[in-house]
Amino acid sequence: MSRYWSAVTHGLIPYVPGEQPALDNLIKLNTNENPYGPSPKALAAIRAATEDSLRLYPDPDAKALKAALAKRYRVSPAQVFVGNGSDEVLALAFIGLLKHERPLWMPDVTYSFYPVYCGLYGIKYRQIPLDDDFILRPEDYFPRGENRAGAIIFPNPNAPTGRLLSLADIERIVAANPEAVVLVDEAYIDFADPSDSAIALVDRYPNLLVVHTFSKSRALAGLRIGFAIGQHELITGLERVKNSFNSYPLDRLALAGALASVEDEPWFQASRRKVIATRATLIAQCQALGFEVIPSAANFVFARHPGFDAARLAAMLRQRAIIVRHFNTPRIAQYLRITIGDDKQCAALIDALRDILHAAQ
Amino acid sequence: MSRYWSAVTHGLIPYVPGEQPALDNLIKLNTNENPYGPSPKALAAIRAATEDSLRLYPDPDAKALKAALAKRYRVSPAQVFVGNGSDEVLALAFIGLLKHERPLWMPDVTYSFYPVYCGLYGIKYRQIPLDDDFILRPEDYFPRGENRAGAIIFPNPNAPTGRLLSLADIERIVAANPEAVVLVDEAYIDFADPSDSAIALVDRYPNLLVVHTFSKSRALAGLRIGFAIGQHELITGLERVKNSFNSYPLDRLALAGALASVEDEPWFQASRRKVIATRATLIAQCQALGFEVIPSAANFVFARHPGFDAARLAAMLRQRAIIVRHFNTPRIAQYLRITIGDDKQCAALIDALRDILHAAQ
Repeated sequence: MSRYWSAVTHGLIPYVPGEQPALDNLIKLNTNENPYGPSPKALAAIRAATEDSLRLYPDPDAKALKAALAKRYRVSPAQVFVGNGSDEVLALAFIGLLKHERPLWMPDVTYSFYPVYCGLYGIKYRQIPLDDDFILRPEDYFPRGENRAGAIIFPNPNAPTGRLLSLADIERIVAANPEAVVLVDEAYIDFADPSDSAIALVDRYPNLLVVHTFSKSRALAGLRIGFAIGQHELITGLERVKNSFNSYPLDRLALAGALASVEDEPWFQASRRKVIATRATLIAQCQALGFEVIPSAANFVFARHPGFDAARLAAMLRQRAIIVRHFNTPRIAQYLRITIGDDKQCAALIDALRDILHAAQ
Repeated sequence: MSRYWSAVTHGLIPYVPGEQPALDNLIKLNTNENPYGPSPKALAAIRAATEDSLRLYPDPDAKALKAALAKRYRVSPAQVFVGNGSDEVLALAFIGLLKHERPLWMPDVTYSFYPVYCGLYGIKYRQIPLDDDFILRPEDYFPRGENRAGAIIFPNPNAPTGRLLSLADIERIVAANPEAVVLVDEAYIDFADPSDSAIALVDRYPNLLVVHTFSKSRALAGLRIGFAIGQHELITGLERVKNSFNSYPLDRLALAGALASVEDEPWFQASRRKVIATRATLIAQCQALGFEVIPSAANFVFARHPGFDAARLAAMLRQRAIIVRHFNTPRIAQYLRITIGDDKQCAALIDALRDILHAAQ
């Protein structure tokens, strides 16, 4: 604490990201990175942009990238917002679109950064419990007289559970709240079916904002690119906030790499399909070891073992150079979130789990 | 305006960055970029980092870069904060360190982003007039009973004037306000004498924060890197805010390029010396054409011609494919801010100015 800090700084409870260990020989299944790497065309585009022109500012409006995203997602460029990772896009949405007199509604088990943003911006929020199976009930988000949301946010698939809400259920929430922005955080949607994305609803609902990231399906976590798609009214609001915060959030290399990544559809499809295939195998193998696994539409599984404490299991995996994520928070303290690695990494994980569980018997 | 925007979004007056024209054949002297390009070692480091590991998140704590900056500036790594351009560093400082009950004090003629940040974060501020020669009077920033600053910010050299405040004068302001954070924005300090930097005062004043950028002297505007140096108490406050906003503001390529840039001292020194030499020539040539030029310690000059309207002059330069910056704001509407280009660009500028002025006679 310091007399020099603002009042808000004193009150913050910062987000804690997953560990980024420096050790090379670890099997890193803790931050949902993509094992298959970025598009070679993205790498080539970055190398081509690594030259004298880095002395010049990037395009503050990211016009080329917005045009490519618009084409890829069949919207207009004016319906696209880009930022320095989806975390920045979310942060700007929180202050620009989600802060209202009425509280922001979100699930109780969700991306743990959401309450942190609320703390930073002084946003009132209400956490609505998922059901006992971590399923979001759309009815819980319907207005009841004066009991209505100032705005609504949830990830789909949810994090850290991996559960998918159907597009029909999302539409029910969006349609029931025409006065409130509904932000659907689709960081992991590319590991579900393409028809599950709420981008399909954007043209019909001016209150819907859909946020994506290049960090997972496009394997560019190291480059920090996120985007939002919504009607122009919402995008304009985000642009106003962005241009009051940082004119140039995306550097020239990120812009070049992101553009080439969007244009390499075959790489993107192959990558997501491999992850989805490995996921099915990993879930079956976890279940065979006695784990209860939440149905996952993401590039991770969320699982608990009825006979083994999750924190202890995470620690024992770590002793074997495998890192997974454990959240020591209510309702989910007995679960592990395990990123879908490549087949070799997942096999090593299963071997380690088998050893640990057998030794404990 | 939109019912979906937050109240703050409605009230914003966003910053307007200098134009980034797409035309290749322009002489671009409008955004204070460095004509000499980034260190070749920085480019090599970026190319080396452009590989499969971009699938992984960057180090959220930027430990390697902080260590290099600490070594370069003879402080400890715990006294260094880094961000996505100095604009982001400033934005986080505004909410984290400059927002207090009492107003933030700043010069009336200064970096025009400062009032924008105040708008975004609801910070009260007071603009203190520079004197008639755009000189900042330290006494104006001394507390007088209850009339005291909640915090203080100014650039040094000032923008857009280029005027340098002496280190002794800065120390008077910092020492007179032990209860208030004094943020010295040294975006352009590398074009002054190294002994002018307020970093030399950091160890003695816990209320002093000094902000730098890689966009000017290090010619990496396209990569978005800024940093702050201050005592640990201030840096910790910034880290709290940063970790409540975006865990990974610097991507892997920016981290790699910035690190190599800091370590290439010869390139840095050669680049700044060339700019300083060209500045002396350009000022003399402008004066010979009848311009009044504010003494500049930056990589730009701020000048007016008593016989020629500044907006018209900027427009006529543009017709000749030369872009300079004109601010249509009180006190400075008759000035142009002209970036120090390379010798050829500056010669072309002088030729164009000579033509325009002669034709008008």
